[in-house]
Amino acid sequence: MEAYREKKSITLELGSRMAEAAVKRAEQLGIKINVAIVDEGGHLVHFRRMDQAPILSIEIAQNKAYTAIAFGLPTHEWYPLISKEPALRDGIVHTPRLVIFGGGFPIKIVDEVIGGIGVSGGTAEEDIVCCLAALGLIP
Amino acid sequence: MEAYREKKSITLELGSRMAEAAVKRAEQLGIKINVAIVDEGGHLVHFRRMDQAPILSIEIAQNKAYTAIAFGLPTHEWYPLISKEPALRDGIVHTPRLVIFGGGFPIKIVDEVIGGIGVSGGTAEEDIVCCLAALGLIP
Amino acid sequence: MEAYREKKSITLELGSRMAEAAVKRAEQLGIKINVAIVDEGGHLVHFRRMDQAPILSIEIAQNKAYTAIAFGLPTHEWYPLISKEPALRDGIVHTPRLVIFGGGFPIKIVDEVIGGIGVSGGTAEEDIVCCLAALGLIP
Amino acid sequence: MEAYREKKSITLELGSRMAEAAVKRAEQLGIKINVAIVDEGGHLVHFRRMDQAPILSIEIAQNKAYTAIAFGLPTHEWYPLISKEPALRDGIVHTPRLVIFGGGFPIKIVDEVIGGIGVSGGTAEEDIVCCLAALGLIP
Repeated sequence: MEAYREKKSITLELGSRMAEAAVKRAEQLGIKINVAIVDEGGHLVHFRRMDQAPILSIEIAQNKAYTAIAFGLPTHEWYPLISKEPALRDGIVHTPRLVIFGGGFPIKIVDEVIGGIGVSGGTAEEDIVCCLAALGLIP
Repeated sequence: MEAYREKKSITLELGSRMAEAAVKRAEQLGIKINVAIVDEGGHLVHFRRMDQAPILSIEIAQNKAYTAIAFGLPTHEWYPLISKEPALRDGIVHTPRLVIFGGGFPIKIVDEVIGGIGVSGGTAEEDIVCCLAALGLIP
Repeated sequence: MEAYREKKSITLELGSRMAEAAVKRAEQLGIKINVAIVDEGGHLVHFRRMDQAPILSIEIAQNKAYTAIAFGLPTHEWYPLISKEPALRDGIVHTPRLVIFGGGFPIKIVDEVIGGIGVSGGTAEEDIVCCLAALGLIP
Repeated sequence: MEAYREKKSITLELGSRMAEAAVKRAEQLGIKINVAIVDEGGHLVHFRRMDQAPILSIEIAQNKAYTAIAFGLPTHEWYPLISKEPALRDGIVHTPRLVIFGGGFPIKIVDEVIGGIGVSGGTAEEDIVCCLAALGLIP
């Protein structure tokens, strides 16, 4: 019997460096963002809100990171998956904490999800750009 | 290091005068409204419900005021922003406390958000008219 | 930089065998229980409710398993820790999902928490006995 | 009429330095903590969880920081205030997000609350020690 399987879980060190990289990218874009990093179980590891970033985005950023690890997909890949299926499009969007627009990505080592990042505060496209800057730090 | 930044926060005095102005406008229109005033952090400062105003609108008025400060936008500007982006239109509307129809406005001094107002009870258009009457009091 | 740390996470195979062992022990005791197994992140892996086991215990069993992994302690060790500290005894008990009575145990390989088990339906003592029967299966 | 009052709000820069100082102190104590920094309105500014810090403490740390700003008192001052008043001791503890044990402090400039810090993961005494290390950074 296999009693357990091995997993990898993001460190605070990588998480905080990724969040800093996202913030630096946001500064270049001239936007104010919230950044959340969660571990592979969806639990918050690190969060930072730029001064004057929108308050409503505090929770959206965390939910994007959670959604990303919960299915292993970037959040912007959700809508193409559900838009042709009305029952999903109108139904699954009510799932608590599910975010179906861009700005959340799984953090992977090779093919294994070790955590997630969520950015909220700019447009979905800007939030994605900030995530990509952070994802570039994965060794 | 910058340890803090200066903010402005609406007083109860201005908030209550604004709410009274919104109620007076509602009386002229022959409608019954709820009016909520929040500070720049989204916390309730003042609330008044006209006799016989709809109960469901108690929470909607507060959420409109909250949404207004949370992004610094009037709530009626949300739908034009998201209607062309299906993933936002079908997704972001599920954010707790987000209201995407008219009747919520940030209260600004110059360009700084010092609070928010939310009106609910009439049509979106009537609620907006009541908000505008209140916003006219900002010095 | 350490990008990640290695973790172990319980398999469904071990989890379901443990739950079966708890149920078998409950049958011997003549009680009806709910058994929950969670992974090391607190997410449900396996659940089984014996016919006619109390409905209220469905959630209690899951919360016991969650509490066990959330601090790495059996739930019956909480009360001795807090009973001498009035502020904790009267305060921390209100933490959502925290259970401070017996029937929840971390599942450990050597010293590492790989999951948790929660049993609810009997007395705290009976629930503990059922957990112990399950814990005996850890290789 | 006074339309607004001036407030001070903690920056991400001070908040993140304070959180780092709390973590450094925790490392010296050999404990694993969660640290949350909120602004003067109780909204999350910064969060960091040390690797392997207890999951249940993620929310407790944030609630300690929230409680600290919500009344302007360190959380460990609550129990002495309510312990002699049974109706408060048994009643007010049910208030959502209120934490009545040590580990949360308002962050003040002169006498003004500009934010709050919450630490959770050690004993209440250890959590307080980590907060104090962070509070030493206030200019």
